Amino acid sequence: MIHETKSKTLKSSADTFTSLGFRIPSLQGRSDPFRYIGEELQLVEETLARAIRSREQSLTDIAAHTILGGGKRVRPAVTILAFLAFGGKKASDIVDIAAAMELIHTATLLHDDIIDGAETRRGKDSAYKKFGLKSTLVAGDFLFIKAFEFAGKFDERVVQWTADACSLLTEGEMLQGHFNRNRDVTLDDYIEIVKRKTASLFHTGGKVGAYLAGADSNQIEATERYGLNMGIAFQVVDDILDVVGHVELLGKPTGMDLRDGNPSLPIILALQGRESAVCEAFECEQPSENQIAAALAALRTGNAIEAAKTISKHYAEDALKSIKKLPPSLYRNGLKTLVRLIIDRDF
Amino acid sequence: MIHETKSKTLKSSADTFTSLGFRIPSLQGRSDPFRYIGEELQLVEETLARAIRSREQSLTDIAAHTILGGGKRVRPAVTILAFLAFGGKKASDIVDIAAAMELIHTATLLHDDIIDGAETRRGKDSAYKKFGLKSTLVAGDFLFIKAFEFAGKFDERVVQWTADACSLLTEGEMLQGHFNRNRDVTLDDYIEIVKRKTASLFHTGGKVGAYLAGADSNQIEATERYGLNMGIAFQVVDDILDVVGHVELLGKPTGMDLRDGNPSLPIILALQGRESAVCEAFECEQPSENQIAAALAALRTGNAIEAAKTISKHYAEDALKSIKKLPPSLYRNGLKTLVRLIIDRDF
Repeated sequence: MIHETKSKTLKSSADTFTSLGFRIPSLQGRSDPFRYIGEELQLVEETLARAIRSREQSLTDIAAHTILGGGKRVRPAVTILAFLAFGGKKASDIVDIAAAMELIHTATLLHDDIIDGAETRRGKDSAYKKFGLKSTLVAGDFLFIKAFEFAGKFDERVVQWTADACSLLTEGEMLQGHFNRNRDVTLDDYIEIVKRKTASLFHTGGKVGAYLAGADSNQIEATERYGLNMGIAFQVVDDILDVVGHVELLGKPTGMDLRDGNPSLPIILALQGRESAVCEAFECEQPSENQIAAALAALRTGNAIEAAKTISKHYAEDALKSIKKLPPSLYRNGLKTLVRLIIDRDF
Repeated sequence: MIHETKSKTLKSSADTFTSLGFRIPSLQGRSDPFRYIGEELQLVEETLARAIRSREQSLTDIAAHTILGGGKRVRPAVTILAFLAFGGKKASDIVDIAAAMELIHTATLLHDDIIDGAETRRGKDSAYKKFGLKSTLVAGDFLFIKAFEFAGKFDERVVQWTADACSLLTEGEMLQGHFNRNRDVTLDDYIEIVKRKTASLFHTGGKVGAYLAGADSNQIEATERYGLNMGIAFQVVDDILDVVGHVELLGKPTGMDLRDGNPSLPIILALQGRESAVCEAFECEQPSENQIAAALAALRTGNAIEAAKTISKHYAEDALKSIKKLPPSLYRNGLKTLVRLIIDRDF
């Protein structure tokens, strides 16, 4: 299971959703609601560029390499859309915390790449490969710190929720580590890992956005549930793409979960079906390229991918259900479209 | 240059200063002002023990291994003493931020041990050696997050100062990395590294303590200057002990700075004196034990240690001067005594 697959073709968030939209015909033109948050996303970009400035140029370089290297900005988008969907008006009230979500995400990417020994991300060398362990570790800390500097401008509740999301991330990482190359992992374990590791910033972004717009507790809870479910759907699609995605679009090789021994959903489903090639590659400390290829072939021809797709759609449906009662608006539509983008993406 | 040398004999902060006092006869009995902050330090201990609780037992275990493993709690002590010295009354107003200083310090220890590949700390296996890179890295993140959760309970100014201290820490780590095994390092570079890496939590603790007690801007600035200077003195003594300290008291071998290639003050002074054994061991990628022993012998018999002691006393004097105009109190005396403890310690 990887944190997020990234395309090397994406440059900035202003381009991001246009690019995403262009890949899904139905989103083009007036029906693409993402253009309505273009201004806020642009402010997030500027905030991120400012945040990573340090008197130590190397810290700025490493942060820029990763944070300006083509993220989809899905977490800021959820935060901003939730804010606007509940009548939030001033972009300045939401931009810093939306940027904080991306800073935290990027900090975990830097540290995850150290943990996984990842060599590539978003179609280029990972920071870990390019700058080495020491600098990448410290740059991850630096981004965490910047995120909290931003979050600290908000009230105690927002700070607490942001800290809770981060604690969940670390607890998710530990739980995932426990099930590394461990075939005892169950579907419940998987969902628990993903809730903590991937969904936490989505549900926190949604919750914080709604709260800062003055939504009531039921509405905040609904938006949080949306983020939780769409975050799980997001990770399941990531896991699927690690098996069936295209290297050029992913910006990294497929089969990374097998190489790293991370229990992705297709792998878990195949383990449960006692698919021998997958069991062999997953449990082996250092699987050979032949073992990886055999396991990938088995995953592609078996029914694990179809089953995983069904599961991702289930969570996507739950996400959509959660926001049914939100007041109708372009931004609620945006939250809906985001779910479709996530489900239909091929990178 | 190491972050802090620790004794394996210290158990809790309540014991800590008694133990310290017992080692320096003049501090025993009624003249030992540390007993006046025993209650606050005990609350810090309880707060730390609560902070490191996680549903992931391994996170708690790693955090406990380091944070409950014998720290001197000097950063919380500075914070609390500064608060009380300006008439701060309620312990509950200061304990959380004092604990945050220790959490941040411990987070950097965990990450530093990864960076230095350190095997021992405080007389036992380092977390890095005992729990491995992945878990130690994540546990460091976890402690950073907990620190910001605590700092986030205070106003924006305190959050900003805390974040600034953390940014400085990362920038100090990068600058130190730049001068690793690099004989171009100057005394100015050294002071800049130490200001960022060691002194930042001391001067921030002092500043925050004074501010939260309602001190005026001159008083806050004086307390900050105290922390800065005593922090530099603290690190210089650490560097000296890495050459002349006793293994049992340090809880780790001497010569770690030479092994790690970190530019400590005695090393820099010896490099400037073109002391060949020190140059050789410092610049060598993997110095042999013979090279380390020869360099240590040269450092011990040359005048680098005496010169370093003079420098540490200079900063200690500056620290004492900074707080001369503080209102007389037991707590101002405590700040003074803390400087003497730091200068005179042998662990």
